[in-house]
Amino acid sequence: MIMKNMEITVVKTGGNVIDKPADLTSFLKKFATLSGNKILIHGGGKLATKLSDRLAIPTTMIEGRRVTDSQTVEIVTMVYAGLINKTITAQLQSLGCNAVGFSGADAGMIKAVKRPPCPVDFGFVGDIPADGINSERLMKFIDMGLVPVFCSITADGQGVLLNCNADTVAQSIATAVASAGAFVRLIYCFDKQGLLADVNDDSSVIPLIDSDNCAQLKDEGVITAGMIPKIDNAFMALNAGVKEVVIKSHRDLDKNDKGTRIVA
Amino acid sequence: MIMKNMEITVVKTGGNVIDKPADLTSFLKKFATLSGNKILIHGGGKLATKLSDRLAIPTTMIEGRRVTDSQTVEIVTMVYAGLINKTITAQLQSLGCNAVGFSGADAGMIKAVKRPPCPVDFGFVGDIPADGINSERLMKFIDMGLVPVFCSITADGQGVLLNCNADTVAQSIATAVASAGAFVRLIYCFDKQGLLADVNDDSSVIPLIDSDNCAQLKDEGVITAGMIPKIDNAFMALNAGVKEVVIKSHRDLDKNDKGTRIVA
Repeated sequence: MIMKNMEITVVKTGGNVIDKPADLTSFLKKFATLSGNKILIHGGGKLATKLSDRLAIPTTMIEGRRVTDSQTVEIVTMVYAGLINKTITAQLQSLGCNAVGFSGADAGMIKAVKRPPCPVDFGFVGDIPADGINSERLMKFIDMGLVPVFCSITADGQGVLLNCNADTVAQSIATAVASAGAFVRLIYCFDKQGLLADVNDDSSVIPLIDSDNCAQLKDEGVITAGMIPKIDNAFMALNAGVKEVVIKSHRDLDKNDKGTRIVA
Repeated sequence: MIMKNMEITVVKTGGNVIDKPADLTSFLKKFATLSGNKILIHGGGKLATKLSDRLAIPTTMIEGRRVTDSQTVEIVTMVYAGLINKTITAQLQSLGCNAVGFSGADAGMIKAVKRPPCPVDFGFVGDIPADGINSERLMKFIDMGLVPVFCSITADGQGVLLNCNADTVAQSIATAVASAGAFVRLIYCFDKQGLLADVNDDSSVIPLIDSDNCAQLKDEGVITAGMIPKIDNAFMALNAGVKEVVIKSHRDLDKNDKGTRIVA
Protein backbone atom coordinates (compact mmCIF):
# COMPACT_ATOMS: atom_id res chain seq x y z
CA MET A 1 0.00 0.00 0.00
CA ILE A 2 1.20 3.49 -0.83
CA MET A 3 0.12 4.87 2.51
CA LYS A 4 2.15 2.74 4.93
CA ASN A 5 4.07 4.87 7.43
CA MET A 6 2.59 8.03 5.96
CA GLU A 7 1.72 10.61 8.60
CA ILE A 8 -1.55 12.50 8.22
CA THR A 9 -3.10 15.16 10.40
CA VAL A 10 -6.89 15.28 10.14
CA VAL A 11 -8.35 18.55 11.45
CA LYS A 12 -12.04 19.23 12.08
CA THR A 13 -13.24 22.80 12.50
CA GLY A 14 -16.72 23.98 13.31
CA GLY A 15 -19.24 26.73 13.06
CA ASN A 16 -17.90 29.18 15.63
CA VAL A 17 -14.76 30.00 13.69
CA ILE A 18 -16.36 29.73 10.23
CA ASP A 19 -18.92 32.33 11.19
CA LYS A 20 -16.31 35.04 11.81
CA PRO A 21 -14.19 35.93 8.77
CA ALA A 22 -11.21 37.28 10.76
CA ASP A 23 -11.12 34.23 13.06
CA LEU A 24 -11.43 31.91 10.06
CA THR A 25 -8.51 33.57 8.30
CA SER A 26 -6.41 33.38 11.47
CA PHE A 27 -7.27 29.67 11.83
CA LEU A 28 -6.49 28.91 8.19
CA LYS A 29 -3.09 30.59 8.53
CA LYS A 30 -2.27 28.20 11.38
CA PHE A 31 -3.64 25.24 9.40
CA ALA A 32 -1.54 26.20 6.36
CA THR A 33 1.64 26.10 8.45
CA LEU A 34 1.04 22.57 9.81
CA SER A 35 3.78 20.42 8.35
CA GLY A 36 3.18 17.21 6.48
CA ASN A 37 0.09 15.66 4.94
CA LYS A 38 -3.21 17.02 6.17
CA ILE A 39 -6.95 16.98 5.62
CA LEU A 40 -9.45 19.60 6.79
CA ILE A 41 -13.11 18.87 7.55
CA HIS A 42 -15.47 21.74 8.23
CA GLY A 43 -18.99 22.25 9.45
CA GLY A 44 -20.91 25.47 9.12
CA GLY A 45 -24.27 25.00 10.80
CA LYS A 46 -24.60 28.59 11.98
CA LEU A 47 -24.40 30.00 8.45
CA ALA A 48 -26.90 27.38 7.25
CA THR A 49 -29.30 28.42 10.00
CA LYS A 50 -28.87 32.08 9.00
CA LEU A 51 -29.70 31.34 5.37
CA SER A 52 -32.71 29.22 6.39
CA ASP A 53 -33.92 32.13 8.52
CA ARG A 54 -33.57 34.58 5.64
CA LEU A 55 -35.58 32.20 3.43
CA ALA A 56 -38.17 31.66 6.19
CA ILE A 57 -37.43 27.92 6.21
CA PRO A 58 -37.79 26.66 9.78
CA THR A 59 -34.72 25.06 11.37
CA THR A 60 -35.54 22.00 13.47
CA MET A 61 -32.84 20.49 15.66
CA ILE A 62 -33.35 17.20 17.51
CA GLU A 63 -30.63 16.10 19.94
CA GLY A 64 -28.32 18.69 18.38
CA ARG A 65 -28.84 17.28 14.87
CA ARG A 66 -30.44 19.23 12.05
CA VAL A 67 -33.64 17.79 10.60
CA THR A 68 -32.88 17.99 6.89
CA ASP A 69 -35.96 18.11 4.69
CA SER A 70 -35.74 18.60 0.91
CA GLN A 71 -35.44 22.38 1.23
CA THR A 72 -32.86 22.13 4.02
CA VAL A 73 -30.61 19.72 2.15
CA GLU A 74 -30.44 22.34 -0.62
CA ILE A 75 -29.55 25.00 1.97
CA VAL A 76 -26.75 22.99 3.59
CA THR A 77 -25.38 21.91 0.20
CA MET A 78 -25.24 25.55 -0.88
CA VAL A 79 -23.69 26.77 2.37
CA TYR A 80 -21.30 23.91 3.21
CA ALA A 81 -20.24 22.62 -0.25
CA GLY A 82 -20.49 26.03 -1.93
CA LEU A 83 -19.85 29.12 0.13
CA ILE A 84 -17.80 27.76 3.03
CA ASN A 85 -15.86 25.07 1.15
CA LYS A 86 -14.78 27.41 -1.65
CA THR A 87 -14.06 30.33 0.70
CA ILE A 88 -11.74 28.08 2.71
CA THR A 89 -10.14 26.53 -0.37
CA ALA A 90 -9.47 29.89 -2.04
CA GLN A 91 -7.97 31.28 1.18
CA LEU A 92 -5.73 28.25 1.71
CA GLN A 93 -4.56 28.51 -1.90
CA SER A 94 -3.64 32.16 -1.26
CA LEU A 95 -1.58 30.97 1.74
CA GLY A 96 0.45 28.54 -0.37
CA CYS A 97 -1.50 25.50 0.79
CA ASN A 98 -2.57 23.43 -2.20
CA ALA A 99 -6.15 22.88 -1.06
CA VAL A 100 -8.86 21.11 -3.02
CA GLY A 101 -12.44 21.27 -1.81
CA PHE A 102 -14.58 18.16 -1.77
CA SER A 103 -17.96 16.88 -0.79
CA GLY A 104 -18.30 13.18 -0.19
CA ALA A 105 -19.98 12.89 -3.60
CA ASP A 106 -16.79 13.96 -5.37
CA ALA A 107 -14.86 11.08 -6.88
CA GLY A 108 -17.24 8.87 -4.90
CA MET A 109 -15.03 9.36 -1.86
CA ILE A 110 -17.71 9.06 0.83
CA LYS A 111 -20.73 6.84 0.35
CA ALA A 112 -23.26 7.44 3.11
CA VAL A 113 -26.49 5.68 3.97
CA LYS A 114 -29.71 7.62 4.56
CA ARG A 115 -30.65 7.29 8.19
CA PRO A 116 -33.81 5.18 8.70
CA PRO A 117 -36.86 7.33 9.61
CA CYS A 118 -37.35 5.56 12.96
CA PRO A 119 -37.18 6.51 15.79
CA VAL A 120 -36.63 10.05 14.46
CA ASP A 121 -37.02 11.05 10.81
CA PHE A 122 -34.05 13.36 10.22
CA GLY A 123 -34.78 13.49 6.47
CA PHE A 124 -31.77 13.71 4.16
CA VAL A 125 -29.25 12.84 6.85
CA GLY A 126 -26.56 10.27 6.22
CA ASP A 127 -24.49 7.91 8.29
CA ILE A 128 -21.15 6.60 7.07
CA PRO A 129 -20.72 2.84 7.17
CA ALA A 130 -17.37 1.24 8.00
CA ASP A 131 -16.54 0.81 4.31
CA GLY A 132 -17.99 4.20 3.32
CA ILE A 133 -14.69 6.00 2.70
CA ASN A 134 -12.74 5.32 -0.51
CA SER A 135 -9.39 5.79 1.24
CA GLU A 136 -7.40 4.63 -1.78
CA ARG A 137 -8.77 7.47 -3.90
CA LEU A 138 -8.39 9.98 -1.09
CA MET A 139 -4.77 8.97 -0.63
CA LYS A 140 -4.10 9.48 -4.34
CA PHE A 141 -5.04 13.14 -3.94
CA ILE A 142 -2.72 13.42 -0.94
CA ASP A 143 0.04 11.71 -2.94
CA MET A 144 -0.38 14.49 -5.53
CA GLY A 145 0.57 16.98 -2.81
CA LEU A 146 -3.00 18.20 -2.39
CA VAL A 147 -4.72 19.12 0.86
CA PRO A 148 -8.31 17.84 0.77
CA VAL A 149 -10.91 20.11 2.39
CA PHE A 150 -14.15 18.24 3.06
CA CYS A 151 -17.55 19.60 3.87
CA SER A 152 -20.03 17.25 5.50
CA ILE A 153 -22.27 16.81 2.44
CA THR A 154 -22.14 13.26 1.12
CA ALA A 155 -24.15 11.13 -1.30
CA ASP A 156 -25.68 7.66 -1.23
CA GLY A 157 -24.30 6.40 -4.55
CA GLN A 158 -27.80 6.68 -6.05
CA GLY A 159 -27.59 10.41 -6.71
CA VAL A 160 -29.13 11.57 -3.43
CA LEU A 161 -27.23 14.19 -1.41
CA LEU A 162 -27.12 13.64 2.34
CA ASN A 163 -26.14 15.86 5.25
CA CYS A 164 -23.70 14.17 7.62
CA ASN A 165 -22.33 15.27 10.95
CA ALA A 166 -18.93 16.86 10.35
CA ASP A 167 -17.41 15.35 13.52
CA THR A 168 -18.41 11.93 12.21
CA VAL A 169 -17.01 12.66 8.75
CA ALA A 170 -13.69 13.59 10.38
CA GLN A 171 -13.69 10.43 12.49
CA SER A 172 -14.62 8.24 9.50
CA ILE A 173 -11.90 9.72 7.31
CA ALA A 174 -9.28 9.46 10.07
CA THR A 175 -10.29 5.87 10.75
CA ALA A 176 -10.25 4.88 7.08
CA VAL A 177 -6.76 6.21 6.37
CA ALA A 178 -5.49 4.75 9.67
CA SER A 179 -6.94 1.35 8.70
CA ALA A 180 -5.04 1.63 5.43
CA GLY A 181 -1.79 1.96 7.39
CA ALA A 182 -1.22 5.68 7.86
CA PHE A 183 -0.12 7.24 11.17
CA VAL A 184 -3.07 9.52 11.88
CA ARG A 185 -3.56 12.38 14.32
CA LEU A 186 -7.13 13.67 14.59
CA ILE A 187 -7.63 17.20 15.92
CA TYR A 188 -11.08 18.56 16.81
CA CYS A 189 -11.00 22.35 17.01
CA PHE A 190 -13.69 24.24 18.86
CA ASP A 191 -14.12 27.42 20.88
CA LYS A 192 -12.84 26.12 24.24
CA GLN A 193 -9.20 25.41 25.03
CA GLY A 194 -9.94 21.75 25.56
CA LEU A 195 -12.15 19.64 27.76
CA LEU A 196 -12.67 21.70 30.93
CA ALA A 197 -12.99 20.25 34.42
CA ASP A 198 -14.96 23.39 35.30
CA VAL A 199 -16.91 24.79 32.35
CA ASN A 200 -16.63 28.31 33.82
CA ASP A 201 -12.85 28.14 34.18
CA ASP A 202 -10.97 28.25 30.88
CA SER A 203 -7.74 27.28 32.64
CA SER A 204 -9.19 23.97 33.90
CA VAL A 205 -8.26 22.00 30.78
CA ILE A 206 -8.01 18.27 31.38
CA PRO A 207 -4.75 17.46 29.59
CA LEU A 208 -5.37 13.73 29.10
CA ILE A 209 -8.35 11.42 28.82
CA ASP A 210 -7.98 7.69 28.52
CA SER A 211 -10.45 4.84 28.71
CA ASP A 212 -9.84 4.62 32.50
CA ASN A 213 -10.81 8.16 33.48
CA CYS A 214 -13.40 8.67 30.70
CA ALA A 215 -16.24 6.78 32.42
CA GLN A 216 -15.50 8.62 35.67
CA LEU A 217 -15.56 12.02 33.92
CA LYS A 218 -18.92 11.13 32.34
CA ASP A 219 -20.30 10.04 35.75
CA GLU A 220 -19.10 13.27 37.35
CA GLY A 221 -20.80 15.30 34.62
CA VAL A 222 -17.51 16.79 33.44
CA ILE A 223 -18.10 15.30 30.00
CA THR A 224 -21.50 16.84 29.30
CA ALA A 225 -24.15 16.14 26.66
CA GLY A 226 -22.61 18.32 23.95
CA MET A 227 -19.19 16.73 24.41
CA ILE A 228 -20.27 13.09 24.48
CA PRO A 229 -20.49 12.63 20.67
CA LYS A 230 -17.01 14.18 20.32
CA ILE A 231 -15.52 11.90 22.99
CA ASP A 232 -17.31 8.83 21.64
CA ASN A 233 -16.08 9.63 18.12
CA ALA A 234 -12.59 10.03 19.55
CA PHE A 235 -12.61 6.59 21.14
CA MET A 236 -14.10 5.01 18.03
CA ALA A 237 -11.23 6.50 16.04
CA LEU A 238 -8.63 5.35 18.57
CA ASN A 239 -10.08 1.84 18.68
CA ALA A 240 -9.88 1.72 14.89
CA GLY A 241 -6.19 2.63 14.75
CA VAL A 242 -5.97 6.43 14.96
CA LYS A 243 -2.91 7.17 17.11
CA GLU A 244 -3.99 10.34 18.85
CA VAL A 245 -7.08 12.53 19.16
CA VAL A 246 -6.79 16.10 20.42
CA ILE A 247 -9.60 18.50 21.31
CA LYS A 248 -8.41 22.09 21.38
CA SER A 249 -9.12 25.70 20.55
CA HIS A 250 -8.90 26.97 16.99
CA ARG A 251 -6.44 29.55 18.29
CA ASP A 252 -4.08 26.81 19.49
CA LEU A 253 -3.99 24.68 16.36
CA ASP A 254 -0.28 25.39 15.93
CA LYS A 255 0.57 24.72 19.61
CA ASN A 256 1.33 21.08 20.30
CA ASP A 257 1.17 21.37 24.11
CA LYS A 258 -2.40 22.73 24.21
CA GLY A 259 -5.79 21.07 24.47
CA THR A 260 -7.00 17.71 25.69
CA ARG A 261 -5.26 14.63 24.36
CA ILE A 262 -7.32 11.48 24.16
CA VAL A 263 -5.61 8.13 24.02
CA ALA A 264 -6.92 4.58 24.03
CA MET B 1 3.98 15.31 -21.92
CA ILE B 2 1.42 12.84 -20.63
CA MET B 3 -1.39 14.39 -22.64
CA LYS B 4 -0.05 14.04 -26.20
CA ASN B 5 -2.58 12.34 -28.49
CA MET B 6 -5.06 12.12 -25.66
CA GLU B 7 -8.62 12.79 -26.79
CA ILE B 8 -10.82 14.92 -24.56
CA THR B 9 -14.41 16.03 -25.01
CA VAL B 10 -15.20 19.28 -23.19
CA VAL B 11 -18.94 19.84 -22.73
CA LYS B 12 -20.59 23.06 -21.57
CA THR B 13 -24.18 23.01 -20.37
CA GLY B 14 -26.29 25.94 -19.31
CA GLY B 15 -29.15 27.16 -17.23
CA ASN B 16 -32.10 25.89 -19.26
CA VAL B 17 -31.38 22.23 -18.61
CA ILE B 18 -30.07 22.70 -15.06
CA ASP B 19 -33.31 24.37 -14.05
CA LYS B 20 -35.41 21.30 -14.85
CA PRO B 21 -34.52 18.18 -12.82
CA ALA B 22 -35.91 15.66 -15.35
CA ASP B 23 -34.11 17.33 -18.28
CA LEU B 24 -30.90 17.52 -16.27
CA THR B 25 -31.04 13.81 -15.45
CA SER B 26 -31.72 12.97 -19.09
CA PHE B 27 -28.77 15.13 -20.17
CA LEU B 28 -26.43 13.60 -17.56
CA LYS B 29 -27.35 10.10 -18.74
CA LYS B 30 -26.22 11.06 -22.25
CA PHE B 31 -23.07 12.70 -20.88
CA ALA B 32 -22.24 9.61 -18.82
CA THR B 33 -22.34 7.43 -21.96
CA LEU B 34 -19.89 9.61 -23.95
CA SER B 35 -16.82 7.48 -24.46
CA GLY B 36 -13.31 8.56 -23.56
CA ASN B 37 -11.96 11.40 -21.43
CA LYS B 38 -14.36 14.22 -20.74
CA ILE B 39 -14.88 17.39 -18.76
CA LEU B 40 -18.20 19.06 -17.96
CA ILE B 41 -18.63 22.79 -17.34
CA HIS B 42 -21.94 24.09 -16.10
CA GLY B 43 -23.64 27.42 -15.56
CA GLY B 44 -26.77 27.91 -13.52
CA GLY B 45 -27.75 31.56 -13.75
CA LYS B 46 -31.49 30.96 -13.56
CA LEU B 47 -31.26 29.24 -10.18
CA ALA B 48 -28.96 32.01 -8.90
CA THR B 49 -31.51 34.62 -9.97
CA LYS B 50 -34.27 32.66 -8.20
CA LEU B 51 -32.29 32.56 -4.95
CA SER B 52 -31.45 36.27 -5.24
CA ASP B 53 -35.15 36.99 -5.70
CA ARG B 54 -36.08 34.97 -2.63
CA LEU B 55 -33.49 36.90 -0.61
CA ALA B 56 -34.67 40.22 -2.09
CA ILE B 57 -31.21 40.86 -3.54
CA PRO B 58 -31.62 42.69 -6.85
CA THR B 59 -30.20 40.99 -9.96
CA THR B 60 -28.53 43.39 -12.36
CA MET B 61 -27.52 42.18 -15.81
CA ILE B 62 -25.46 44.33 -18.19
CA GLU B 63 -24.91 43.00 -21.70
CA GLY B 64 -26.07 39.59 -20.52
CA ARG B 65 -23.52 39.50 -17.72
CA ARG B 66 -24.43 39.39 -14.03
CA VAL B 67 -23.21 42.31 -11.92
CA THR B 68 -21.72 40.46 -8.96
CA ASP B 69 -21.55 42.49 -5.77
CA SER B 70 -20.40 41.02 -2.45
CA GLN B 71 -23.83 39.52 -1.72
CA THR B 72 -24.22 38.15 -5.24
CA VAL B 73 -20.84 36.42 -5.27
CA GLU B 74 -22.00 34.54 -2.17
CA ILE B 75 -25.25 33.60 -3.96
CA VAL B 76 -23.52 32.30 -7.10
CA THR B 77 -20.89 30.43 -5.07
CA MET B 78 -23.66 28.72 -3.11
CA VAL B 79 -25.75 27.89 -6.17
CA TYR B 80 -23.05 27.02 -8.72
CA ALA B 81 -20.28 25.48 -6.57
CA GLY B 82 -22.66 24.03 -3.99
CA LEU B 83 -26.12 22.99 -5.10
CA ILE B 84 -25.67 22.52 -8.85
CA ASN B 85 -22.12 21.17 -8.83
CA LYS B 86 -22.81 18.57 -6.15
CA THR B 87 -26.22 17.60 -7.59
CA ILE B 88 -24.56 16.92 -10.95
CA THR B 89 -21.59 15.12 -9.41
CA ALA B 90 -23.75 12.86 -7.24
CA GLN B 91 -25.99 12.01 -10.20
CA LEU B 92 -23.04 11.23 -12.48
CA GLN B 93 -21.55 9.01 -9.78
CA SER B 94 -24.86 7.12 -9.60
CA LEU B 95 -24.59 6.61 -13.40
CA GLY B 96 -21.16 5.00 -13.12
CA CYS B 97 -19.34 8.14 -14.25
CA ASN B 98 -16.49 8.93 -11.84
CA ALA B 99 -17.22 12.64 -11.55
CA VAL B 100 -15.41 15.08 -9.28
CA GLY B 101 -16.81 18.57 -8.81
CA PHE B 102 -14.50 21.56 -8.90
CA SER B 103 -14.47 25.30 -8.76
CA GLY B 104 -11.50 27.06 -10.26
CA ALA B 105 -10.20 27.63 -6.71
CA ASP B 106 -9.76 23.90 -6.16
CA ALA B 107 -6.17 22.71 -6.52
CA GLY B 108 -5.51 26.20 -7.92
CA MET B 109 -6.74 24.98 -11.29
CA ILE B 110 -8.13 28.27 -12.61
CA LYS B 111 -6.60 31.58 -11.64
CA ALA B 112 -8.79 34.45 -12.79
CA VAL B 113 -8.24 38.20 -12.75
CA LYS B 114 -10.88 40.55 -11.35
CA ARG B 115 -12.28 42.59 -14.21
CA PRO B 116 -11.28 46.28 -14.00
CA PRO B 117 -14.19 48.51 -12.90
CA CYS B 118 -14.09 50.58 -16.13
CA PRO B 119 -16.06 50.93 -18.34
CA VAL B 120 -18.56 48.82 -16.35
CA ASP B 121 -18.03 47.72 -12.74
CA PHE B 122 -19.19 44.11 -12.75
CA GLY B 123 -17.93 43.59 -9.18
CA PHE B 124 -16.55 40.15 -8.34
CA VAL B 125 -16.36 39.02 -11.95
CA GLY B 126 -13.26 37.33 -13.28
CA ASP B 127 -11.57 36.93 -16.62
CA ILE B 128 -9.23 34.05 -17.32
CA PRO B 129 -5.84 35.01 -18.71
CA ALA B 130 -4.06 32.84 -21.29
CA ASP B 131 -1.99 31.15 -18.56
CA GLY B 132 -4.89 30.95 -16.11
CA ILE B 133 -5.54 27.20 -16.36
CA ASN B 134 -3.23 24.75 -14.60
CA SER B 135 -3.65 22.14 -17.34
CA GLU B 136 -0.97 19.86 -15.90
CA ARG B 137 -2.90 19.46 -12.66
CA LEU B 138 -6.20 19.10 -14.48
CA MET B 139 -4.75 16.35 -16.66
CA LYS B 140 -3.55 14.48 -13.57
CA PHE B 141 -7.16 14.15 -12.43
CA ILE B 142 -8.14 12.90 -15.89
CA ASP B 143 -5.24 10.44 -15.82
CA MET B 144 -6.73 9.07 -12.58
CA GLY B 145 -9.87 8.19 -14.56
CA LEU B 146 -11.86 11.05 -13.09
CA VAL B 147 -14.37 13.24 -14.92
CA PRO B 148 -13.94 16.86 -13.75
CA VAL B 149 -17.16 18.85 -13.41
CA PHE B 150 -16.45 22.58 -13.22
CA CYS B 151 -18.71 25.38 -12.12
CA SER B 152 -17.81 28.89 -13.22
CA ILE B 153 -16.63 30.12 -9.80
CA THR B 154 -12.91 30.84 -9.78
CA ALA B 155 -10.45 32.64 -7.52
CA ASP B 156 -7.73 35.21 -8.00
CA GLY B 157 -4.96 33.43 -6.08
CA GLN B 158 -5.32 35.99 -3.27
CA GLY B 159 -8.32 34.32 -1.66
CA VAL B 160 -11.01 36.26 -3.53
CA LEU B 161 -13.76 34.28 -5.25
CA LEU B 162 -14.78 35.50 -8.70
CA ASN B 163 -17.74 34.72 -10.94
CA CYS B 164 -16.70 33.86 -14.48
CA ASN B 165 -18.76 33.25 -17.58
CA ALA B 166 -19.22 29.49 -17.97
CA ASP B 167 -18.85 29.63 -21.77
CA THR B 168 -15.48 31.30 -21.27
CA VAL B 169 -14.43 28.77 -18.64
CA ALA B 170 -15.23 25.99 -21.12
CA GLN B 171 -13.28 27.71 -23.89
CA SER B 172 -10.30 28.40 -21.59
CA ILE B 173 -10.16 24.82 -20.36
CA ALA B 174 -10.50 23.41 -23.90
CA THR B 175 -7.80 25.75 -25.16
CA ALA B 176 -5.41 24.97 -22.32
CA VAL B 177 -5.58 21.20 -22.72
CA ALA B 178 -5.36 21.56 -26.52
CA SER B 179 -2.25 23.73 -26.11
CA ALA B 180 -0.76 20.97 -24.01
CA GLY B 181 -1.19 18.55 -26.91
CA ALA B 182 -4.56 16.90 -26.43
CA PHE B 183 -7.06 16.37 -29.26
CA VAL B 184 -9.99 18.41 -27.98
CA ARG B 185 -13.63 18.59 -29.02
CA LEU B 186 -15.64 21.40 -27.41
CA ILE B 187 -19.43 21.02 -27.30
CA TYR B 188 -21.73 23.86 -26.24
CA CYS B 189 -25.15 22.53 -25.32
CA PHE B 190 -28.16 24.82 -25.25
CA ASP B 191 -31.91 24.69 -25.86
CA LYS B 192 -31.86 25.02 -29.67
CA GLN B 193 -30.77 22.29 -32.05
CA GLY B 194 -27.89 24.37 -33.32
CA LEU B 195 -27.40 27.71 -34.97
CA LEU B 196 -30.63 28.37 -36.86
CA ALA B 197 -30.85 30.21 -40.19
CA ASP B 198 -34.41 31.11 -39.21
CA VAL B 199 -34.86 31.49 -35.44
CA ASN B 200 -38.53 30.44 -35.79
CA ASP B 201 -37.72 27.25 -37.66
CA ASP B 202 -36.05 24.56 -35.55
CA SER B 203 -35.24 22.54 -38.65
CA SER B 204 -33.12 25.36 -40.16
CA VAL B 205 -29.90 24.29 -38.42
CA ILE B 206 -26.77 25.55 -40.16
CA PRO B 207 -24.63 22.42 -40.20
CA LEU B 208 -21.25 24.11 -40.64
CA ILE B 209 -19.72 27.48 -39.88
CA ASP B 210 -16.21 28.36 -40.89
CA SER B 211 -14.27 31.62 -40.92
CA ASP B 212 -15.49 32.28 -44.47
CA ASN B 213 -19.25 32.20 -43.89
CA CYS B 214 -19.12 33.48 -40.27
CA ALA B 215 -18.75 37.18 -41.19
CA GLN B 216 -21.55 36.84 -43.73
CA LEU B 217 -23.87 35.19 -41.17
CA LYS B 218 -23.16 38.03 -38.73
CA ASP B 219 -23.87 40.64 -41.42
CA GLU B 220 -27.15 38.92 -42.33
CA GLY B 221 -28.19 38.91 -38.65
CA VAL B 222 -28.31 35.11 -38.53
CA ILE B 223 -25.72 35.14 -35.77
CA THR B 224 -27.52 37.41 -33.30
CA ALA B 225 -26.39 39.24 -30.16
CA GLY B 226 -26.89 36.29 -27.79
CA MET B 227 -24.92 33.95 -30.06
CA ILE B 228 -21.96 36.22 -30.77
CA PRO B 229 -20.02 35.43 -27.55
CA LYS B 230 -20.50 31.68 -28.18
CA ILE B 231 -19.28 31.95 -31.78
CA ASP B 232 -16.39 34.23 -30.82
CA ASN B 233 -15.39 31.81 -28.04
CA ALA B 234 -15.60 28.98 -30.57
CA PHE B 235 -13.20 30.68 -32.98
CA MET B 236 -10.83 31.63 -30.14
CA ALA B 237 -10.73 27.97 -29.15
CA LEU B 238 -10.20 26.80 -32.75
CA ASN B 239 -7.44 29.34 -33.31
CA ALA B 240 -5.74 28.08 -30.16
CA GLY B 241 -5.71 24.44 -31.26
CA VAL B 242 -9.11 22.99 -30.37
CA LYS B 243 -10.00 20.66 -33.27
CA GLU B 244 -13.77 21.03 -33.37
CA VAL B 245 -16.48 23.11 -31.74
CA VAL B 246 -20.11 21.99 -31.85
CA ILE B 247 -23.20 23.92 -30.76
CA LYS B 248 -26.16 21.64 -30.23
CA SER B 249 -29.18 20.77 -28.12
CA HIS B 250 -28.80 19.04 -24.75
CA ARG B 251 -31.12 16.39 -26.10
CA ASP B 252 -28.68 15.58 -28.93
CA LEU B 253 -25.48 15.31 -26.90
CA ASP B 254 -25.15 11.63 -27.84
CA LYS B 255 -25.90 12.21 -31.54
CA ASN B 256 -22.79 13.00 -33.55
CA ASP B 257 -24.64 14.18 -36.69
CA LYS B 258 -26.64 16.90 -34.93
CA GLY B 259 -25.97 20.57 -34.26
CA THR B 260 -23.74 23.18 -35.84
CA ARG B 261 -20.09 22.29 -36.33
CA ILE B 262 -17.66 25.18 -36.27
CA VAL B 263 -14.25 24.78 -37.85
CA ALA B 264 -11.39 27.19 -38.39
